Amino acid sequence: MNDVINQLKNHRSIRKYSSRPVSREQVEEIVAAAQAASSSSNVQAYSVIAVTEQARKDKLAELCGNQAYISECPVFLVWCGDLTRLKSAAERHLPDRETFEESTESFIIATVDAALAAQNAAVAAESLGLGIVYIGGIRNRSGEVADLLGLPELAYPVFGMCLGYPDQEPGLRPRLPQESVLHWNRYDRERSEQGVEKYDEVMVEYLRKRTGGAKDTAWSVLMAEKLAQPARLHMREFLQKRGFLLK
Amino acid sequence: MNDVINQLKNHRSIRKYSSRPVSREQVEEIVAAAQAASSSSNVQAYSVIAVTEQARKDKLAELCGNQAYISECPVFLVWCGDLTRLKSAAERHLPDRETFEESTESFIIATVDAALAAQNAAVAAESLGLGIVYIGGIRNRSGEVADLLGLPELAYPVFGMCLGYPDQEPGLRPRLPQESVLHWNRYDRERSEQGVEKYDEVMVEYLRKRTGGAKDTAWSVLMAEKLAQPARLHMREFLQKRGFLLK
Repeated sequence: MNDVINQLKNHRSIRKYSSRPVSREQVEEIVAAAQAASSSSNVQAYSVIAVTEQARKDKLAELCGNQAYISECPVFLVWCGDLTRLKSAAERHLPDRETFEESTESFIIATVDAALAAQNAAVAAESLGLGIVYIGGIRNRSGEVADLLGLPELAYPVFGMCLGYPDQEPGLRPRLPQESVLHWNRYDRERSEQGVEKYDEVMVEYLRKRTGGAKDTAWSVLMAEKLAQPARLHMREFLQKRGFLLK
Repeated sequence: MNDVINQLKNHRSIRKYSSRPVSREQVEEIVAAAQAASSSSNVQAYSVIAVTEQARKDKLAELCGNQAYISECPVFLVWCGDLTRLKSAAERHLPDRETFEESTESFIIATVDAALAAQNAAVAAESLGLGIVYIGGIRNRSGEVADLLGLPELAYPVFGMCLGYPDQEPGLRPRLPQESVLHWNRYDRERSEQGVEKYDEVMVEYLRKRTGGAKDTAWSVLMAEKLAQPARLHMREFLQKRGFLLK
């Protein structure tokens, strides 16, 4: 155990920010740390849009399902999988070839590159005393977000990230027992499911305490309910329109 | 700037490991840090297989395109997007519903959850003095990898990660100028492309130095060449067989 691991294990998502500003230099430092993350064959297939204009944050808050903290945080980062630079390179250096063949594989590369960079950014931000929360809601109305940010073809918003000084102290949320996610040499489904049973009990207790008894739904029930209402079913069509053919 | 950001900015991929072992406790500590990463609606849609058996590492090295360091590292982690636990929950709590509807959205959630957790693991490992390298080659022969690790339906290997004490000191590889990846309020394609031109020069110089003049291909040419040989075109079919319908 050390300070870095302590910091990582103390992550909590922050949804309430103080009015203290975040400087351009801080954002640049955070993104420099993000850029140092691994990237598949050094393709660096991501971009990040730092949104600071109030009107644009307000609009994004609405597009992400009326999440007020997007308006309230000083900087809202939109992390994009981005193959634009690669396509430009291909057009410049291989003019004879037909257009760049977009595949499920290149979509994975862009998505993973964005996520690795973003997680480094999250760690860097927290090391500076800032709080963050990832915003999957950026995919609710992806087309409008892409238009608002002027994204080129082959760039898509993977998730957003609020950035700011915390004005709340949420407790740590328990995670699955390690036996549910860590396997040795071979996937052990039985052990994984046993962990879920324990976690259900832990989360019922956690929710009861946090809500003063108002909520006590087991994690696996919450997950089942979530699956019963599949969200963002437009993603495939949206991605294909943006040039991610997912072949 | 601080120690955490310094560590992040000093990341380099390690492909040569000393014989010093990595303990089970270290792996558990690293995975505990990984588990603390953000997860979409707390679904925790990933698993990680820690491979320590020599024969299994040897086979994985072969399946990943004969990358010897997979055999040589003491622990090889295979990070999987994993919706198995969610499907089990749905089957248990919503027995009347037809099977869980798999979408491009849920594929993104699983892939991103795996990547955020893995990047925390990378940061934790490096804080302990270990070195890592991500292995995209785990997707070369995905079906055989899934069989070897006994992955259930709805789990897929996103990438591997070697773990071990470094026995080399590779230099830092320059990244794209920040202007190519960081945009303010709106995507600025022109500025991004200008950054690529500068980066081409930086990388030519870097390659020349590193290879004693043997290599000096510009980054954008390397990227164009990469696109001219699209890899892993089996991914869509493989994922669909595993239950990731990508609808």
